[in-house]
Amino acid sequence: MNKAIFIIGVSGSGKSTIGKLLSEYLNLPFFDGDDYHSNENIAKMSKGIPLNDQDRYGWLQSLNRLANGQLENNSCIIVCSALKQSYRDILSEGIEGMTKWVHLHGTFEQIAERINNRKGHFMTSDLLKSQFDILEDPKEALQIDISKTPNEIVETINDQFLEKSDIGLFGLGVMGKSLSRNLAQKGFEISMYNRHITGLEENVAKDFKLEFEELSAAIPFDDVKSFVHSIQKPRKIMLMVKAGKTIDLVIGDLLPHLSEGDILIDGGNSNYNKTKERIAYLKSKKVHFIGVGISGGEEGALKGPSIMAGGNRDAYIKVKHFLEAIVAKDINNLPCCTYIGNEGAGHFVKMVHNGIEYVEMQLLAEVFGVLKAMNKNPDEIADILASWKNMSNSYLLEITIDILRKKENNDWLINKIIDKADNKGTGNWANIASAELGTPSTLIASALFARFTSFYKEDRVIANLNFSKKKELNFNLEYEDILNAYQFARIINHYQGFSLLDQASNKYEWHLNLSEIARIWTNGCIIKSELMRQLVKTLKTNSNILADKEFIQQVSELFVSSKKVVSQGVLNEISIPCMSDSINFFNAYKTAKSSANLMQAQRDYFGAHSYQRTDDASGIYHHTNWKNK
Amino acid sequence: MNKAIFIIGVSGSGKSTIGKLLSEYLNLPFFDGDDYHSNENIAKMSKGIPLNDQDRYGWLQSLNRLANGQLENNSCIIVCSALKQSYRDILSEGIEGMTKWVHLHGTFEQIAERINNRKGHFMTSDLLKSQFDILEDPKEALQIDISKTPNEIVETINDQFLEKSDIGLFGLGVMGKSLSRNLAQKGFEISMYNRHITGLEENVAKDFKLEFEELSAAIPFDDVKSFVHSIQKPRKIMLMVKAGKTIDLVIGDLLPHLSEGDILIDGGNSNYNKTKERIAYLKSKKVHFIGVGISGGEEGALKGPSIMAGGNRDAYIKVKHFLEAIVAKDINNLPCCTYIGNEGAGHFVKMVHNGIEYVEMQLLAEVFGVLKAMNKNPDEIADILASWKNMSNSYLLEITIDILRKKENNDWLINKIIDKADNKGTGNWANIASAELGTPSTLIASALFARFTSFYKEDRVIANLNFSKKKELNFNLEYEDILNAYQFARIINHYQGFSLLDQASNKYEWHLNLSEIARIWTNGCIIKSELMRQLVKTLKTNSNILADKEFIQQVSELFVSSKKVVSQGVLNEISIPCMSDSINFFNAYKTAKSSANLMQAQRDYFGAHSYQRTDDASGIYHHTNWKNK
Repeated sequence: MNKAIFIIGVSGSGKSTIGKLLSEYLNLPFFDGDDYHSNENIAKMSKGIPLNDQDRYGWLQSLNRLANGQLENNSCIIVCSALKQSYRDILSEGIEGMTKWVHLHGTFEQIAERINNRKGHFMTSDLLKSQFDILEDPKEALQIDISKTPNEIVETINDQFLEKSDIGLFGLGVMGKSLSRNLAQKGFEISMYNRHITGLEENVAKDFKLEFEELSAAIPFDDVKSFVHSIQKPRKIMLMVKAGKTIDLVIGDLLPHLSEGDILIDGGNSNYNKTKERIAYLKSKKVHFIGVGISGGEEGALKGPSIMAGGNRDAYIKVKHFLEAIVAKDINNLPCCTYIGNEGAGHFVKMVHNGIEYVEMQLLAEVFGVLKAMNKNPDEIADILASWKNMSNSYLLEITIDILRKKENNDWLINKIIDKADNKGTGNWANIASAELGTPSTLIASALFARFTSFYKEDRVIANLNFSKKKELNFNLEYEDILNAYQFARIINHYQGFSLLDQASNKYEWHLNLSEIARIWTNGCIIKSELMRQLVKTLKTNSNILADKEFIQQVSELFVSSKKVVSQGVLNEISIPCMSDSINFFNAYKTAKSSANLMQAQRDYFGAHSYQRTDDASGIYHHTNWKNK
Repeated sequence: MNKAIFIIGVSGSGKSTIGKLLSEYLNLPFFDGDDYHSNENIAKMSKGIPLNDQDRYGWLQSLNRLANGQLENNSCIIVCSALKQSYRDILSEGIEGMTKWVHLHGTFEQIAERINNRKGHFMTSDLLKSQFDILEDPKEALQIDISKTPNEIVETINDQFLEKSDIGLFGLGVMGKSLSRNLAQKGFEISMYNRHITGLEENVAKDFKLEFEELSAAIPFDDVKSFVHSIQKPRKIMLMVKAGKTIDLVIGDLLPHLSEGDILIDGGNSNYNKTKERIAYLKSKKVHFIGVGISGGEEGALKGPSIMAGGNRDAYIKVKHFLEAIVAKDINNLPCCTYIGNEGAGHFVKMVHNGIEYVEMQLLAEVFGVLKAMNKNPDEIADILASWKNMSNSYLLEITIDILRKKENNDWLINKIIDKADNKGTGNWANIASAELGTPSTLIASALFARFTSFYKEDRVIANLNFSKKKELNFNLEYEDILNAYQFARIINHYQGFSLLDQASNKYEWHLNLSEIARIWTNGCIIKSELMRQLVKTLKTNSNILADKEFIQQVSELFVSSKKVVSQGVLNEISIPCMSDSINFFNAYKTAKSSANLMQAQRDYFGAHSYQRTDDASGIYHHTNWKNK
């Protein structure tokens, strides 16, 4: 709600100083009442004739018109002594509910001393005394002691009159909007900011507020400064902008208006290395930075996502109640949100989440590919997948069934979608991180590369013509075999994902709680599944899924089908990279004595890199001149 | 050879100044002759009595003894007027061949003016004139006009007296030593440097020189400054040190002694991004930096490696004759060395070379694994591989045969080697680069991850116990099938490697000549092979191997066996990740309409990422509310 803020008080109380400072602080227009006298009044005053109340009424009415006009568009600040109640009645006529009075209050001695210290000003003691005599105490005004510093006075006014939000949302894209509504629905007062770009992004926050009932108390902004000042200190501001350089630009825009102890929360898919750098940089500015991974997509963000928070633990404690209020709940009604660890740990875990997600999606595409090759149409495939819910349910399985059933003009919509699967970077980073950590995330790499290959559309079309296809397909598979192969590959995928987390935890000393991470992934996020619920328990006692008794049993059983599906996929020329990798990784993993000794020998042969020996427990490295027969 | 350098000339010619400067420049001990007078001479001089020749002889003899002593260990610089031939005869007695004279020569007027300008010095015109009178022109001396600047004089002396090498080798590890010998064998005069670490690396260069006849003219150093000054300008210095931070430390050590236009050549496996940064940094110091990838291992470096050079082309032209002289020759007797492109292009291409190498090694390990599972012993496997030389010969195949045949105490040595295959980073970087470039290098990733998995030795041993193995193996394969599957995967590997180069070439505007790169890989390097020779021709007309008519034919034929081998490998629980990937990639690559549309639909479902439609040629992105049935 717009307000007309009148700064009132006797001459010398500092009205103009405070008015101008407040105008700058709140980014609101400032008007000095003295500039609005009529020519008649000015003539009178210049002749030294004092104004009577009659003269004043016309002037006060013009200030009332000024306030009325301003209030149509924004709040405003007007300075005017307004000592009598009758004067104030004129000023606030018709805008009573929108008028706020600030009375700068001091003793006669305080103000007399001040006036005498001002250069170029002079006021007789009598004149000041007459002002005190006519002053009618403004009961409804905010009374402020002028012995405070100007900055303190301005902050007091700001704290008193402006709604103070609990938290700010910066950036109103798909995710930012959903999170805003989610927070508002939970009863939080929020400030919402979206930039203004003429012709492209105008009044985004204002228009969004009008769209949804729950946002009626939310305050919209397209000005960074007022947005920041509208939030309670220590301020909590959630950044929901594009990951990458934009984050640094936004930090640069916010910094001048932030105060010590404020907390920025990056809710985007930022690179964990960058998050670490930003935490360190902002620490030097005494501002906290928390990197939180948010999974759940548009709907999750609105109804309850899963949130992985990393950075300073004390800062997390201060935002915890917001996050816990908006996230999904697990089976025990606990929030799907946790403090992950220092530095970029939250974003790292979100990155691995997305890596696992890439594979889960690719595996469903492979299942789809095999079933298509077995001449099933999308509805039939949806039915088969629906029957798998008992054993292998997941959010991604469910939406895949929806997708396959979706029709448009009597044809399946899926048939109309171009087969190019895009990516936004997190899968890339997961692959890069696993290379850097020396962890074999073979399925993530294959899922990523499958998306890359899908983008070779033109080459694929040409290759399809150049290479003759197998004419007759020959599958000897039960649907259960495919389900088992799918489930087998999913277990290997989760094994590799949690191994990657474990490896990072050791290297970066994050002390990740793998079971807790699985728990917050049981709801709200894209990879929530029955398997994930099972893992919460497993990971409590064993960070290595494949060393767990139940999983050893399960994997051994599923393996039989997996071999069938993969070998037949290969013979029938269906690309099933992630399923194949799950088998090849598993076969390597359960081989006590592998053929890698040959590679180590080759390295020693051409590069003198040396090797360790099975018959030398010391682990010393040996070199052989291999050419000497 | 050590030298005694006498700086001679009349009083006031600047002998001490030049002597000290030269001493600093060459890092050689400096002696002022005046400090070696006998007590008798000093007493005489302090009384103002001039020395006669008899007095001088004793003094000159002591200087001769000084020179003799110094020459046992190093060169030295001695300042002494030595105006008469008889004086010089005494100074050089017994060390005539090791004595060098530098005569600082000026006119009477020049020197008189100089002396008068010196503070605290005074010499009568008569005294100076008497010096000119007794001066006997030293014919064998290097005559230097004193009107030159001191630095010019010092450089003239340095250029004249010190052997100037053609090129310097910095770092005498396995590769540095081999390259030094190679360069020396080709007739180049080289300076060789290795650091001095007491007790660990002492006299490395000196000792190495003594080891090999061809190094008799090479000059050894363990002092950076003298090493640098021993090389002709513009200096060419090849750095053969550990890639990584060491390179920057070495650059820091060298820089103070380098001159404008000098050329550093980094012959290690440096990261291409770092090479780009170093080129830019050294450009600001007016020093060239060339990043060259060198392949061939220890033996290749000695007998002829393959060299991939990147950086500034003009600088490359200046070192080209060295590189071309030492590399291997291709089938047309052309050097296996070429200018690759700007920035870190040379190191990038070397990195991809190593990525291809990782896969070639992994494929041989997979072949080894399959044949072992078919109960063949190493000798039998060597025989089978030897029979493949006709169709699929390569350096790595040849050394594998040697390795498999190598015996120790009646057992095969290969059986004694621990199955952990190490890596040094280039495979990692190749995987990271392909992720960053959006190129599906599936085989490189799998080969890298196979090495990582080999390092999970303890886990593997436990898993081997936990997961029961297939008891009876059942292969229905001809050796030719395995050969064909191997060859098929090799072609896919080379397709992916050259695609990665092509992609980088486009992105970084390096204008890579793929055929030329294949050509320099036909000899000297680790991945030289018959296939590579074939590719030189193919890549001339087609950057995409799989679009080449001959390869289409070849791949189609090999594919039949490949499917057999991979499906049977899967059924028999042999880990064959790269062979499997070759099939899965090929199947994806030749699929005109893939299942990737499902993933794009999933992305739109949960993240509103939108998709393109087959029935909308505009390419516009669409979004669907998938839940509405």
